[in-house]
Parts: sequence; C-alpha cells; structure tokens
Amino acid sequence: MSAVDDLLMNNEEFAWKFDGRGLPRSPSRGIAVVACMDARVDVYRLLGLALGDAHVIRNAGGVVTEDVVRSLLVSQRLLGTREIALVHHTDCGMQGVREEDVTAQVQAETARPLPFSLEAFDDLVTSVRESIARLRANPFLPHTDRIRGFIYDVETGRLAEVRP
Amino acid sequence: MSAVDDLLMNNEEFAWKFDGRGLPRSPSRGIAVVACMDARVDVYRLLGLALGDAHVIRNAGGVVTEDVVRSLLVSQRLLGTREIALVHHTDCGMQGVREEDVTAQVQAETARPLPFSLEAFDDLVTSVRESIARLRANPFLPHTDRIRGFIYDVETGRLAEVRP
Repeated sequence: MSAVDDLLMNNEEFAWKFDGRGLPRSPSRGIAVVACMDARVDVYRLLGLALGDAHVIRNAGGVVTEDVVRSLLVSQRLLGTREIALVHHTDCGMQGVREEDVTAQVQAETARPLPFSLEAFDDLVTSVRESIARLRANPFLPHTDRIRGFIYDVETGRLAEVRP
Repeated sequence: MSAVDDLLMNNEEFAWKFDGRGLPRSPSRGIAVVACMDARVDVYRLLGLALGDAHVIRNAGGVVTEDVVRSLLVSQRLLGTREIALVHHTDCGMQGVREEDVTAQVQAETARPLPFSLEAFDDLVTSVRESIARLRANPFLPHTDRIRGFIYDVETGRLAEVRP
C-alpha cells in the first residue's frame, strides 16, 4: 500500500463529517497567501483560516516566481483578492543550498542542463524582501499596494513580520 | 485594519498552543501533494495530514508548471519524497476561462503581452491526466513511478481518483 492510500482513508472520514457546502469561489477575506511547501507549515492552521477564506499558493521556498505571478494574476483579476501575505520560514530547505552542486548533479545524471534556477537563498529576511520587490515591480498584478512579508518559526509557531 | 492583521491575531493564539517542535525537514510520509490554490481546498484537513507529513505545492489550477517541477525536484532530490498526489477540484476558477479574453484585457491595460499561459482548461479529468503526463515526461525528477491524480469535490469533501 502506498502512503497515498492511507491519506485516502483519512479522506473518507473527512468527507463523512464535511460541512463546507455552498462556499463561493472567491476568497471571503480577499487575501492570497504565498508560502513555502514545507511540511511543517500548515497555512490554514497557523493563520486561523476557515475554508473559503484565502487563496493559498505554495512552492519550494515560497519565493515569487513566474508561476506565482500567474496564480496571483488569476487570484486578483478573476477572483477578487487584493491583499498578499508572503510566508517564508526558519530551517528552510532552500536556505544555503549550493545551486551549482545540485545543477551539476542533475546534469551528470540526465545529460541535460537544468533549464531553471532552483531559487535557493542565503538569508531569510533578504529573500522575503526580494519576493516583495518582485511583486511590486510586476506590471501584470493590479493590486500591489498591500503586500506583507513574514517569517514563520517552525519551532514556536509564531509569525514575525519582515519590514520592507 | 487589513485582513492580514486579523490573521496575525489568529497566529498569536495558534503559537500559544503550538506543539509542533522538533519535526524534521523531510516529510515523514515521503509524499508531495500538488493542489489548486482554491480557498475551499484545505489540503491538510482533507487528507488528514499532520504537521511534517507531506510537502504541499499549490498554484492556480494545481497544474504542473515549470515551478511545480522545480519544487518537486527539491522535494525529491533534497528532501527525500518519492510519491506525488495531484489534487484538482470541482468548480475550479481555471475551468472554462477564455485565455484570449484575459490576455487581451491585460494587454489593453498594461500595453504588454502576457509572457506566460494562464494554464486554463476545459475538462477536469483531462487536466489531471495532462499534469500526470507532464510529470512522467519530465527528465529531471528521479521518481515518477508513483504519481496519482484526484478530483476533490468542494461540495462533498470527497476525493475521486482519476485513472490514467
């Protein structure tokens, strides 16, 4: 049995008790959260989000990439969000990764150059600021005046705001 | 007060009760979930995931893009996951979107062509299969033998598997 079969049994129980019918598509709080994919970061729980409250976009590092811009464009232009919250976190797997080592290993194995950056970073605060700067500089997002950035501490559960 | 300030008050309460210390970086179930950003899709709850169990990657539509491949590459090569579960859902905002209308509107407002596809789709099952096919065809992911795709029903809370 794969690990996914376990999760499907959990879903049976979840569906049995489900009480989230009839929620609208557009997030009721008008927020999109951009966070790291880290398994220790449960975005709904740590922000107290209810079903239907906010879009949640996640990738390795929580960094702003073209795909994050695509998602935010859909979020803002088609589904009415206006605020963005970025959530990076302590002990991130992307912090301090030596990109050249990983790309060299991938190239040795696959005989192809990796066609994208891993978006690794050295400093958390700088990385949050860089992501905010990328959003502010993007010409395609209609709402970039309410963007806030945070670092989540995986050992305390606490968010700390990064001042621009 | 912005909507984010509300969420920060929720976080104070969350941190007060936090009991997630000492979890390792690598997901304990060895799974990465790729899901849509939709506000009604609480991935942890609907799969019964505990803190630390699985990477959670999310974007508009839950479709496999280059950034999803980047995240999965990090997930598999640096953090040891081997299985992938894709979660699309009913009533998705990306379903049936007329890309040409949105891109024309963006271009009219910004005087620039949109440099990426919105990744809209017409049929949910086809979209899940297309995402699975993109993963299987990708040369950079070491583990593509255990990929499963699902459609989550936002009205019942139930996952239905899409057979390849």
